[in-house]
Amino acid sequence: MGEVIRLVHGNGGRFSHELMERYILPHFTNSLLAPLHDGAQFTVKAGRMAFTTDSYVVTPQFFPGGNIGKLAVCGTVNDLTMNGAVPQYLSCGFILEEGLDSDVLESVVTTMAAMAKEAGVQIVTGDTKVVEKGAVDGIYINTAGVGYIPEGIAIGPDRVTADMDVILTGSLGDHAVAVMGTRYGFTLPDSIVTDCAPLNGMLTPVLSEFGDAVALMRDPTRGGVATVLQEIATQAQVGIRVREAAVPVHEDVAAVCHMLGYDPLYLANEGKAILFVKKEATEEILHRLHQHTYGREAVCIGETMAKNAGKVGLETALGGVRLLDMLGEDQVPRIC
Amino acid sequence: MGEVIRLVHGNGGRFSHELMERYILPHFTNSLLAPLHDGAQFTVKAGRMAFTTDSYVVTPQFFPGGNIGKLAVCGTVNDLTMNGAVPQYLSCGFILEEGLDSDVLESVVTTMAAMAKEAGVQIVTGDTKVVEKGAVDGIYINTAGVGYIPEGIAIGPDRVTADMDVILTGSLGDHAVAVMGTRYGFTLPDSIVTDCAPLNGMLTPVLSEFGDAVALMRDPTRGGVATVLQEIATQAQVGIRVREAAVPVHEDVAAVCHMLGYDPLYLANEGKAILFVKKEATEEILHRLHQHTYGREAVCIGETMAKNAGKVGLETALGGVRLLDMLGEDQVPRIC
Repeated sequence: MGEVIRLVHGNGGRFSHELMERYILPHFTNSLLAPLHDGAQFTVKAGRMAFTTDSYVVTPQFFPGGNIGKLAVCGTVNDLTMNGAVPQYLSCGFILEEGLDSDVLESVVTTMAAMAKEAGVQIVTGDTKVVEKGAVDGIYINTAGVGYIPEGIAIGPDRVTADMDVILTGSLGDHAVAVMGTRYGFTLPDSIVTDCAPLNGMLTPVLSEFGDAVALMRDPTRGGVATVLQEIATQAQVGIRVREAAVPVHEDVAAVCHMLGYDPLYLANEGKAILFVKKEATEEILHRLHQHTYGREAVCIGETMAKNAGKVGLETALGGVRLLDMLGEDQVPRIC
Repeated sequence: MGEVIRLVHGNGGRFSHELMERYILPHFTNSLLAPLHDGAQFTVKAGRMAFTTDSYVVTPQFFPGGNIGKLAVCGTVNDLTMNGAVPQYLSCGFILEEGLDSDVLESVVTTMAAMAKEAGVQIVTGDTKVVEKGAVDGIYINTAGVGYIPEGIAIGPDRVTADMDVILTGSLGDHAVAVMGTRYGFTLPDSIVTDCAPLNGMLTPVLSEFGDAVALMRDPTRGGVATVLQEIATQAQVGIRVREAAVPVHEDVAAVCHMLGYDPLYLANEGKAILFVKKEATEEILHRLHQHTYGREAVCIGETMAKNAGKVGLETALGGVRLLDMLGEDQVPRIC
């Protein structure tokens, strides 16, 4: 047991300073964060930047393979990456529940620092609020991030056209099943761990190497692959055909999904991306992805078509076609 | 009564899209937000930028003169301004409680849009999570912001030296007393309203007009004026003397503070700044501040000294000197 976090740790005075100095600054230390001046300052080159934010409210806050801090860094790093940006700087806003054990906070902060290091980003500014017991569930984190978009990178739904391949960088459902299993006290096989990972190390080089052969990248988090594909089919006004047999789902994850009635196509992933690529580049891009830890199971799961614009069809194992809509009623709340 | 916010409104699927399209996008609409692509993209000039974040957990969420949305925009605009930056783009992360009335959300969003307009910033990217009833208290908001720092602007604690004047741009305690009065159901005089305001319209021109005559700006939010002065005395290694009689506190606010035992020097303000300025510029800067709505009561409250480095002394009305420390135990939790 560490120290008990109290309301005064969020009042902006002496106790707030102590909280920062004991549990946060030793881990996040970098030259830009040091001045504690209600903001960070840095120099940028002329060009395009991306800016994104996400709040994290996952429950429980620790689960096989990760915790809320891992999600908070990787999620925002990945959103920047999906914008074609090189992630650079992150902000971090904590909302803590009175009575939280400081060991929990420090464990989360330590993970955030490790993930930031892996992703090559700096956590440069932050804020901590403490609310009374019951006014928040343990710890919520918001991260925002900025990064520069290298010259020549232009990805977006408007670049998606008919006759492109759809690549998925790995298996579905691992994160959602790992979190749900912990939440409901199931005994899960050790193989089921969150896929949460920073994807910039794998994808930024792919973008720069393959240039405009990559039209769009998206990470299928909340709403899952089905929701992302439906959004893109609508925005790009193309039809998308997915081969169910090609979609990778780990055996143990599939078994849990089968038992609980989850459809992996709608489950949140935290370390996967969908790429829309020109067909002539598919093989080479897959080869490149396979060389990276996070892309070993990358596979082409389908393609875009001029017909059936705005629709996503799933070719089932039995040869039928099922239309995929966006996620409607929730399968798994508070998954990230 | 509007629609009831449900958990599915945060699941990233169809209901999340509806929530965005009904209650948020119509108010925040701008060309950068439009693509809904998990992030915004914009072009920047080469130079220095500031980046800051704050989470807002104020209770109650509506109070005389404002609401949590007003705080969320003004607070981040002001933090950027205090960095010497011209605020440009804001992110916005909502955490909503299941069962929230959509009218509440829309009212907050409408206020945010109005404040963003006044401050000349765009809310360009966001995120909405919904947690089950009881896992958050109504609505929490995180905003992060970026802005560019004009060439030649260099303010910071290291610029503060002995023999500078300390300017306060207006009266203390209005925000904290307005929120506390509402929280505890006091009948307050109509004169007591939050001072929450975006300060860039007043202060950015002062910085550009008076250049390096302004050494530092800080907004005395959580922890109040006393905490900010103590931080700066320590960081700049100067002594600071404040004349109690010069510190403006509105009569009705002072009466409430007297009754409840609050010290206005430790109360949070949301539309005030402290400026450390070269003495020869004080008169002109005050004259300039007085011309702006938010600076009409600006006044010089004290000065820096070479002696007593790291200490802040308050010259009381009776002629004694009281040392001011940072805020210790809390007077007013969840004030912003």
